[in-house]
Amino acid sequence: MKDIQNQKDERNIPINKVGVKNLEYPIMLEDREKGKQNSVAKVSMFVELPHNYRGTHMSRFVEILNLFHRENIIDNLENLLLEMKEKLQAKVAYIELEFPYFIQKKAPVSSQSSLMSYQCSFRAKYSEEFVFEMSVKVPLHTLCPCSKEISEFGAHNQRAYVNASIIFDDFIWLEELIEIVEETGSSQLYSLLKREDEKYVTEKAYKNPKFVEDVVRDISEKLDKDMRIVSYKIEADSIESIHNHNAFAMVKSKRI
Amino acid sequence: MKDIQNQKDERNIPINKVGVKNLEYPIMLEDREKGKQNSVAKVSMFVELPHNYRGTHMSRFVEILNLFHRENIIDNLENLLLEMKEKLQAKVAYIELEFPYFIQKKAPVSSQSSLMSYQCSFRAKYSEEFVFEMSVKVPLHTLCPCSKEISEFGAHNQRAYVNASIIFDDFIWLEELIEIVEETGSSQLYSLLKREDEKYVTEKAYKNPKFVEDVVRDISEKLDKDMRIVSYKIEADSIESIHNHNAFAMVKSKRI
Amino acid sequence: MKDIQNQKDERNIPINKVGVKNLEYPIMLEDREKGKQNSVAKVSMFVELPHNYRGTHMSRFVEILNLFHRENIIDNLENLLLEMKEKLQAKVAYIELEFPYFIQKKAPVSSQSSLMSYQCSFRAKYSEEFVFEMSVKVPLHTLCPCSKEISEFGAHNQRAYVNASIIFDDFIWLEELIEIVEETGSSQLYSLLKREDEKYVTEKAYKNPKFVEDVVRDISEKLDKDMRIVSYKIEADSIESIHNHNAFAMVKSKRI
Amino acid sequence: MKDIQNQKDERNIPINKVGVKNLEYPIMLEDREKGKQNSVAKVSMFVELPHNYRGTHMSRFVEILNLFHRENIIDNLENLLLEMKEKLQAKVAYIELEFPYFIQKKAPVSSQSSLMSYQCSFRAKYSEEFVFEMSVKVPLHTLCPCSKEISEFGAHNQRAYVNASIIFDDFIWLEELIEIVEETGSSQLYSLLKREDEKYVTEKAYKNPKFVEDVVRDISEKLDKDMRIVSYKIEADSIESIHNHNAFAMVKSKRI
Repeated sequence: MKDIQNQKDERNIPINKVGVKNLEYPIMLEDREKGKQNSVAKVSMFVELPHNYRGTHMSRFVEILNLFHRENIIDNLENLLLEMKEKLQAKVAYIELEFPYFIQKKAPVSSQSSLMSYQCSFRAKYSEEFVFEMSVKVPLHTLCPCSKEISEFGAHNQRAYVNASIIFDDFIWLEELIEIVEETGSSQLYSLLKREDEKYVTEKAYKNPKFVEDVVRDISEKLDKDMRIVSYKIEADSIESIHNHNAFAMVKSKRI
Repeated sequence: MKDIQNQKDERNIPINKVGVKNLEYPIMLEDREKGKQNSVAKVSMFVELPHNYRGTHMSRFVEILNLFHRENIIDNLENLLLEMKEKLQAKVAYIELEFPYFIQKKAPVSSQSSLMSYQCSFRAKYSEEFVFEMSVKVPLHTLCPCSKEISEFGAHNQRAYVNASIIFDDFIWLEELIEIVEETGSSQLYSLLKREDEKYVTEKAYKNPKFVEDVVRDISEKLDKDMRIVSYKIEADSIESIHNHNAFAMVKSKRI
Repeated sequence: MKDIQNQKDERNIPINKVGVKNLEYPIMLEDREKGKQNSVAKVSMFVELPHNYRGTHMSRFVEILNLFHRENIIDNLENLLLEMKEKLQAKVAYIELEFPYFIQKKAPVSSQSSLMSYQCSFRAKYSEEFVFEMSVKVPLHTLCPCSKEISEFGAHNQRAYVNASIIFDDFIWLEELIEIVEETGSSQLYSLLKREDEKYVTEKAYKNPKFVEDVVRDISEKLDKDMRIVSYKIEADSIESIHNHNAFAMVKSKRI
Repeated sequence: MKDIQNQKDERNIPINKVGVKNLEYPIMLEDREKGKQNSVAKVSMFVELPHNYRGTHMSRFVEILNLFHRENIIDNLENLLLEMKEKLQAKVAYIELEFPYFIQKKAPVSSQSSLMSYQCSFRAKYSEEFVFEMSVKVPLHTLCPCSKEISEFGAHNQRAYVNASIIFDDFIWLEELIEIVEETGSSQLYSLLKREDEKYVTEKAYKNPKFVEDVVRDISEKLDKDMRIVSYKIEADSIESIHNHNAFAMVKSKRI
């Protein structure tokens, strides 16, 4: 059968990225406490296509994913990208995986333990060398400093989400990045809080008001001091409880 | 050309609903203050298909929508459904429209005015008679009664969304239903609040704590007393600021 | 500390459903081939609240989920609902879980094997007795009978999604329900197809045109004949390739 | 009342973007045929915050939007950004608007006219000068060249979406950019097609097979020749009808 994809293309236009998007796949992650953790990922895989080929071979992306699934996709991202470069004759290969990650977390007073989920992602690229970016989406409690200051009692507060993406030199756990972010809210969030915990969390947040601007700056300060981190981008998106729109702040490392 | 849809079907299975889904269309709504308001709707239209026809004629749904668009779709829902019944030889016809609706709203102290958007929907059905259901999705501020009671200062609060659907005998404005819902939160939400408004809203909410259970019961009480209303369903979904999951409550009228 | 939720409520309004929504949680499923399969679920849990209580105890829902997680949530849904009824003093308890499920699937000619994901859900309720509903969302290929008939060559086709929900007496595997649905499209979908498979799938679909009306009727016929099934609802939603809206059909069993 | 936002910040970290996100707002657009068109936009507005201020003034964003709404937001984006720079004492201001846009479109044979909706967006930035980016999301029909070549009859095809973003020197209508994209599919999409149109569209697509790679290259060629265009990014995302994942291709102009 004719290989249409291999036809010569005369338009002289290289394609920056071509591949498959939104494949769902089971994965196995490194877990700092338990050793291993099962999850499910949305996967996208792309290569750069030289100007002279009409198309890429989409089925090879899935074959390569299957091949590495037998061992462990996450532990072998670098080899997986090298395989993509070879099998698809490409100068650049990309893979992106988005997945929920679970951490056992203790309530602050009762110490009752429960699972919290965090949406995380890995993005890797191999052009001349292997580049790896790790992202976490962490829910936080933010209590408004202005509302507290001007009001006789109470202060509006809400759930906010921080997206933190980092490129690092030395290994960093998902758990570490999540902890760095969680420390910067007015309070952390929990799946399970008993009454004594709810009292503690409420009072802690009231004593610790934070704008989205404060949150991204506090994380930025911490990441600037961490010598393992090469560059970062931090976004805070706060589901304002007195408005029907969100408050947003973003800081990028100068090194990006 | 052969009319495949008109072929006789031998499977002896009537189809409850068949038609088009997620057509986007500009609409013109009745506005209590301004007379008219432009919006954009997601539209779905279905009919019941008798067991003996193989398929419905999908293009006729869009033709009928175009026809009524020349005058006004929303003002003529009953005639539109009758036209669907006739042109598609159906015993039952359905239309659903989801759209944002805007209300000019004044801040509580500064009286500064701004536009708030609300996701609304109309669902109509014509079997033996015309049945019309109106729904609004209203953002509210809920401040937790338990957190306030047990804490020395502060109380967690958050944005919540109420979905209220009603069937009525006598005309009710979208604005009226939205107002009924907005009165039941710890506070309303606003697009624009100056500092004096933020102080007012913060203190009002602190004095007025509400569980999702309180919100749906308060709305239920009001709707039970409103003689125009035949039946209702109320859902409150609170984006808890101390948890990564939502709190939810739902009440249906006994008459549904 | 005061138990606000336990306060007496004077509004005399029972709440149909109250609880937690969109908790994310790891689960372990029965797999027909491999015995067990890990996945991740979105979980909602509700109870009916009697008129005389002000609020439910939200943290108990999460405690009960944690308790059953130690063994296996999915294998113990009935006991989990009984525990909810007891611990929350409720007449009715509900749980809903949505999760991706993976099946190893062979390409039709090359027999190359790959993983396909399906969005599935379980909904269970315990009032007087345990009621369990199982749903699968299955992607299908639909090729338009009308387009084929009237055109000299080719026929428009597209991806469609079937939602099939069933209540059954005797155990049915997720795999069985998925297979029943997959047989009714113009073709099935696959994660991995080599050229010989793509030829087979293309030609099979062309010989086997199907409207959404045909798909829901064909599934309905099969389910009507399956004595294990008590009731069902089938929806087909086709991402029409020549329109920017979807074609939709729905059939409910007469017994629902 | 104290102005907390104006407090001096000692962390020495400028914030790249801070502001409001996902405000919904009615807008009025230039329409090539009708002169004017009403729509509804999701609006985000950000400024850069100097390192020495603790926070921005979120309510001023909404005040500025209200102010320009009285005349016309879209016609005055440059002045709106200048106002943001001044009122918020910022070196850089950003605004983003996403909205549906409607075009009256004739079926290819019957000439029956109907409305098609397209998701569009405007992104503008004012740092040293005004920079404006326009994007359209256009649905296309793509018929697979490989499937056609290797099969005796038929070919799989599907709906695909092209995202095309451009920065231009000389004015370009949304309609023009949409037309450029629509010409590059195997066929265009329509809201309303009669039988003779469906025959035409089916046969045209079969004679005109396109990979996502072909689509982005064809658009790239056209945009390269258009002297009004400074830079572009084109993405094609095809809802493959034989797979449960999408095929994707992206080309950026060398000048970006």
